[in-house]
Amino acid sequence: MAEKITPRSVDYSQWYIDIVINAKLADYSPVKGCMVIRPHGYAIWERIQAEMDRRFKETGHQNAYFPLLIPMSFMKKEAEHVEGFAPELAVVTIGGGEELEEPLCIRPTSETIIWSKYKDWIQSWRDLPILINQWANVLRWEKRTRLFLRTAEFLWQEGHTAHETEAEAVEETLKMLEVYRDVCERHLCLPVIAGLKSEAEKFAGAVQTYCIEAMMQDKKALQAGTSHFLGQNFAKAFDVQFQTRDGKLDHVWATSWGTSTRLVGAIIMAHSDDKGLVLPPSLAPEELVIVPIYKNETKAAVLAYGDQLLAAIKAAGIRAVMDTDDSSSPGWKFAEWEMRGTPVRVEIGPRDLEAGKVMMARRDTGEKVPVEAAAVPAKARELLDAIQKNLFERARAFRDENTRKVASKAEILEFYGADSAGTAAAHGGFAEGLWCGSRTCEAALKAESKVTIRCLPLGKQEDISGKCCLCGEPAKHTAVFARNY
Amino acid sequence: MAEKITPRSVDYSQWYIDIVINAKLADYSPVKGCMVIRPHGYAIWERIQAEMDRRFKETGHQNAYFPLLIPMSFMKKEAEHVEGFAPELAVVTIGGGEELEEPLCIRPTSETIIWSKYKDWIQSWRDLPILINQWANVLRWEKRTRLFLRTAEFLWQEGHTAHETEAEAVEETLKMLEVYRDVCERHLCLPVIAGLKSEAEKFAGAVQTYCIEAMMQDKKALQAGTSHFLGQNFAKAFDVQFQTRDGKLDHVWATSWGTSTRLVGAIIMAHSDDKGLVLPPSLAPEELVIVPIYKNETKAAVLAYGDQLLAAIKAAGIRAVMDTDDSSSPGWKFAEWEMRGTPVRVEIGPRDLEAGKVMMARRDTGEKVPVEAAAVPAKARELLDAIQKNLFERARAFRDENTRKVASKAEILEFYGADSAGTAAAHGGFAEGLWCGSRTCEAALKAESKVTIRCLPLGKQEDISGKCCLCGEPAKHTAVFARNY
Repeated sequence: MAEKITPRSVDYSQWYIDIVINAKLADYSPVKGCMVIRPHGYAIWERIQAEMDRRFKETGHQNAYFPLLIPMSFMKKEAEHVEGFAPELAVVTIGGGEELEEPLCIRPTSETIIWSKYKDWIQSWRDLPILINQWANVLRWEKRTRLFLRTAEFLWQEGHTAHETEAEAVEETLKMLEVYRDVCERHLCLPVIAGLKSEAEKFAGAVQTYCIEAMMQDKKALQAGTSHFLGQNFAKAFDVQFQTRDGKLDHVWATSWGTSTRLVGAIIMAHSDDKGLVLPPSLAPEELVIVPIYKNETKAAVLAYGDQLLAAIKAAGIRAVMDTDDSSSPGWKFAEWEMRGTPVRVEIGPRDLEAGKVMMARRDTGEKVPVEAAAVPAKARELLDAIQKNLFERARAFRDENTRKVASKAEILEFYGADSAGTAAAHGGFAEGLWCGSRTCEAALKAESKVTIRCLPLGKQEDISGKCCLCGEPAKHTAVFARNY
Repeated sequence: MAEKITPRSVDYSQWYIDIVINAKLADYSPVKGCMVIRPHGYAIWERIQAEMDRRFKETGHQNAYFPLLIPMSFMKKEAEHVEGFAPELAVVTIGGGEELEEPLCIRPTSETIIWSKYKDWIQSWRDLPILINQWANVLRWEKRTRLFLRTAEFLWQEGHTAHETEAEAVEETLKMLEVYRDVCERHLCLPVIAGLKSEAEKFAGAVQTYCIEAMMQDKKALQAGTSHFLGQNFAKAFDVQFQTRDGKLDHVWATSWGTSTRLVGAIIMAHSDDKGLVLPPSLAPEELVIVPIYKNETKAAVLAYGDQLLAAIKAAGIRAVMDTDDSSSPGWKFAEWEMRGTPVRVEIGPRDLEAGKVMMARRDTGEKVPVEAAAVPAKARELLDAIQKNLFERARAFRDENTRKVASKAEILEFYGADSAGTAAAHGGFAEGLWCGSRTCEAALKAESKVTIRCLPLGKQEDISGKCCLCGEPAKHTAVFARNY
């Protein structure tokens, strides 16, 4: 039997780690803060990548690759950028046995090295837009790390685009945010709130940062992706000017946008239970597992029956396997495949064979139904679709149940409880309230309660009237508050 | 018109760089020795990756990801390994603003970090085999670099497998060499010689290194992939033992194998010409381009004709585009798409439209044929297949023409010319001769002529009798000699 998992009700953080380790998604690394992504975790990431990458290409983007190492002097060219990233840099000072003249940092993000090349590639409006994405590893020296959610090194994609006009760059920023929303909701079954970050929370070097925020089962928020409108900041820092259509010189407009292996952590935290991982079928490396149940005398017949079923299920385009390992019991196998998060289990024993039936179990609800052998592929498809839908709806219902409108700081503090440690029992989810836009007002709340503004949700910023729920001054925005990862 | 390319006959090295830059495959980086892989180059790499990855999975391998940074102490655990890689390491000494207690190197290859984890994952024979591959960047500080062929940072895949028995590990080593051979010959159109490296040329830490070697147009050899039988070296260095089927303890047997973005350089060097890149159709981002030729009054009709053709060609499963850019002439476009290496060009003008025909040109031979509109998709497929076949056969014929049997050192020196600079004119290709196996004998030839043993070709090592072509002692091997990249 698999290792015991700490129940969520006992210790949510430990439950999360237990799942990551026992479902063999990732493992600790000998280098502090880094992680090893194991095959099961990497296979999920590959499926996320495929969905993202297809959409990037459909929206006209191309992949490229820029160097891992960035001269320290580049980092310093954009003032806010270096201020934001300097404390997190890993620095190479020795190469080929010799001390380097200029230290090189490992990219924490690639704006600076990419814009140093865009300077060479852009002369005229004819060279624009540049729509490039990069799949890469990045490194940010982190003190407190957690597998997938916050690690020093992580895998991600970073889009870096260059445009003629401000309007075009803003459109791109929002377009890619929408791609992220679509992949998260459709494939990760993760309902998200799309919005604008406050000044305090935006990317170092951006004019505006947009994000998507999801609620985890402990009611904390997790930022699942960001898309930045960079204005002309990096073009100015790297002196990237172009000849406009009317023959003038102007600085290029920019965006950047990223999602990372953190999304694997989001899937775990949003859907899993005390038995282990629960995976959205569209991201599951195996959508279905057949577990045969037999004794020596029935083995050959049951396995032959399983082979037939497996072939029919695969022919229906479903990723399926049969667990023929003789060294473990059916009960052990049930637990193991539940731990791995496989959406549908098909059980077949000698009596099922005689009756021409199977038992089918769904991972999300645990329901089991008997199904005629001939109907198994169609039923499998139906169950997979139902699970995909249910995970999303379950997560959305949970979020909606744990979202509240607030009109005063007292209400916020009451909602999140007096306990500023932010344990699951003590806080309440997402609070939506009006906000004056003041950095001070936002910082005071954070200091007092660890509650931050997650975003200013899109579609809710029109005709704001009323008072800031924190300070009572006239409000300018609708804000979503939460504790967060 | 695109920039002029230096002809191969004038300066082969410059010709290569001109193609890389002008076909926008890669670009120099602000960090010495690193490169920027531009979208056109990266798209070719993605197609190579897809072919490799599919075969890795078909042969039972799974992808995973291990950390970029390796503690220096790990590198030192395998004596030959550290000796081989120490001079090429980039070392991180500062993280998060503080000096690190133990310096970390950026992986030059991942055996050490991976085997430190395999120790945790392997207890019994039931945990074996482990068949893992990783797609990653690696860094080896290089003094003399060349875009794609030798850069400090490069992208690659590295397989790392763990086995119960020596026989199984050797079988795996050869199986993956065969995967490399198949991808290179079938998709890169690169005929290769598969063989064993001499002791002097093997991987630092391996028992045996197998490789595939291809001939470039300047008759030099290029190592296109390596597969290492590591014996129990890394298992011993990291104390990875397992309980065998008969209850004893034994060290695990290992392999590792890799191919890299160097393969993009091999494609360029093997097939391209003085007009630019020539791509094997199966790796070309666009297999076919339609170039419409029109004046203002014929534009609409010609473009409509082109759209119809494009739809029919795409419907036949061919990656095709139409170049509708109004700012450049057809002649400029022809040159530009030839530079990019696009295998088939379809030209359509007003007269073609009237006649219901098109002109089709193939990139490899330059031949042009008129084709009926309705027959274009079928003809395109036929041409693409013919180009794929021709590139391979042309490269193989070139290699065979430039391969010679040698029986004495005098013959080798004569074959490679007196000029030890190794310019194209002065050397002769691959020399096949008998060899005694002595490291001294091999080193003397290298010092004298820059000619090295590329490999001991598989299938030619049986019943060796005769004398070493270098020293006259009794021979043990058949060797392939060449100058190399």
